[in-house]
Amino acid sequence: MKLLRVGTAGAERPALLDAGGTLRDLSGTVADIDGALLADDAALARVRAAADAGTLPALHPAGLRVGPPLARIGKVVCIGLNYHDHAAETGAEPPAEPVVFFKAADTVVGPDDTVLVPRGSVKTDWEVELAVVIGRTARYLESHEEALAHVAGYAVAHDVSEREFQIERGGTWDKGKNCETFNPLGPWLVTADEVPDPQALGLRLWVNGELKQDGTTAQQIFPVAEVVRYVSQFMTLYPGDVINTGTPAGVALGRPEPKPYLRAGDVVELEIDGLGRQRQELKGA
Amino acid sequence: MKLLRVGTAGAERPALLDAGGTLRDLSGTVADIDGALLADDAALARVRAAADAGTLPALHPAGLRVGPPLARIGKVVCIGLNYHDHAAETGAEPPAEPVVFFKAADTVVGPDDTVLVPRGSVKTDWEVELAVVIGRTARYLESHEEALAHVAGYAVAHDVSEREFQIERGGTWDKGKNCETFNPLGPWLVTADEVPDPQALGLRLWVNGELKQDGTTAQQIFPVAEVVRYVSQFMTLYPGDVINTGTPAGVALGRPEPKPYLRAGDVVELEIDGLGRQRQELKGA
Repeated sequence: MKLLRVGTAGAERPALLDAGGTLRDLSGTVADIDGALLADDAALARVRAAADAGTLPALHPAGLRVGPPLARIGKVVCIGLNYHDHAAETGAEPPAEPVVFFKAADTVVGPDDTVLVPRGSVKTDWEVELAVVIGRTARYLESHEEALAHVAGYAVAHDVSEREFQIERGGTWDKGKNCETFNPLGPWLVTADEVPDPQALGLRLWVNGELKQDGTTAQQIFPVAEVVRYVSQFMTLYPGDVINTGTPAGVALGRPEPKPYLRAGDVVELEIDGLGRQRQELKGA
Repeated sequence: MKLLRVGTAGAERPALLDAGGTLRDLSGTVADIDGALLADDAALARVRAAADAGTLPALHPAGLRVGPPLARIGKVVCIGLNYHDHAAETGAEPPAEPVVFFKAADTVVGPDDTVLVPRGSVKTDWEVELAVVIGRTARYLESHEEALAHVAGYAVAHDVSEREFQIERGGTWDKGKNCETFNPLGPWLVTADEVPDPQALGLRLWVNGELKQDGTTAQQIFPVAEVVRYVSQFMTLYPGDVINTGTPAGVALGRPEPKPYLRAGDVVELEIDGLGRQRQELKGA
């Protein structure tokens, strides 16, 4: 299923994009799309049955904002340098084990919302990423099979990054990863049953219409199942948590000087096979 | 005021410790103690009036668990190496600007709850910290005065840390800071009006009755007002966010080998002047 949330920011209603491409209202079926829903097999089955029955009311998509496809996100765990080609372009050795950092859930916005270039920023960069949405509480998982059983679904994430804040201002990467609006998510949460192989997804990102990133999750150093298993050794993952699994080559940081960092007025578009497409205009904060 | 939350985990009720030391039930006055309350001047005034009137029902503290004094925490921003004496003991230069890392809100537990030593951990360490609770949305604050006006109150935080995960496993510090139960908070959220000078607070921590940390916030490299102002340049702070402002000298990491890291069965007690006292027993995860 393709689950989404539509409406004004903070007042989105749950919806579903059906197999025929029609937007359907889920607000009569479930309260919202959040960790509680993803952990509730009976409620998910109710959504699926309603979708299959074709009885859900259609919504007119014209003019309707798409919000993030998940409400009440707990935490956003991020994996750094997780693509062979991206590690190479930044000059880093491929990490021996996953690099972990955090984005706060309050950085998450809708897939087509405005992204704000922070005040004083001259190195705002793009990163298309496969986001994994957790559906079951995960502690000390032992196998890849067990790990994938804890995944509710997948979405497109834009891990917007300020490289000066991240790398040149002391401390950890978090300083350049948590600016307001820095995590567009969506348009859809695609349930895991519709993504049979998360390691076979093309990811692409354009800036002002020019293709900048054109990768595949086959290039991931640590595949989704290993990322989920690994992270669960260090922290507990809860339903409604998100893991951004890293970005392929092609970011501004990896280009020769002068690096083409983002500025107000730029338009970024990104997509992942089967997970939909985002479009953000950048503005000054 | 000393605000707190008492009851079983996940079902705490709001309470207040009055000037005479009596525990009072706030559940008839406010829904909970959270960011929404802290941002609501009228609701806070209602709590204060009820406390002053002496009409709040008393609660019997015997056997009552104390939970974290804040519900629905958004994010926990942490400042590293923020005490002159602690930076020195770890062999680090005092940072030129604040070091920022994150703990997930789901690591927060009550002040006397069990702390779990992660599986495989041999370097679980203690850190007593002054926690700052945000009461108003803070973006790009310009002065220390403005910064302090965004602080709702203060609490004791225990920034439990796994040093191998933090330092030796690749990536950022977050990997060793986010294990389950790694952020005891409380017992009280003491409103800012009762803490006239956050740079004049003694902090102490004992392990199995032996004093390990005995510091003062006067040793902070970046005082609370600067920390709040600084962080607001990189991310938006929301009511109900928490900032752990760093730990003074005396952690296990700073001792000669063999360093006295925590093990199951150890008991950690910590306190800050005017903010109350915590006591945790450690158990295996």
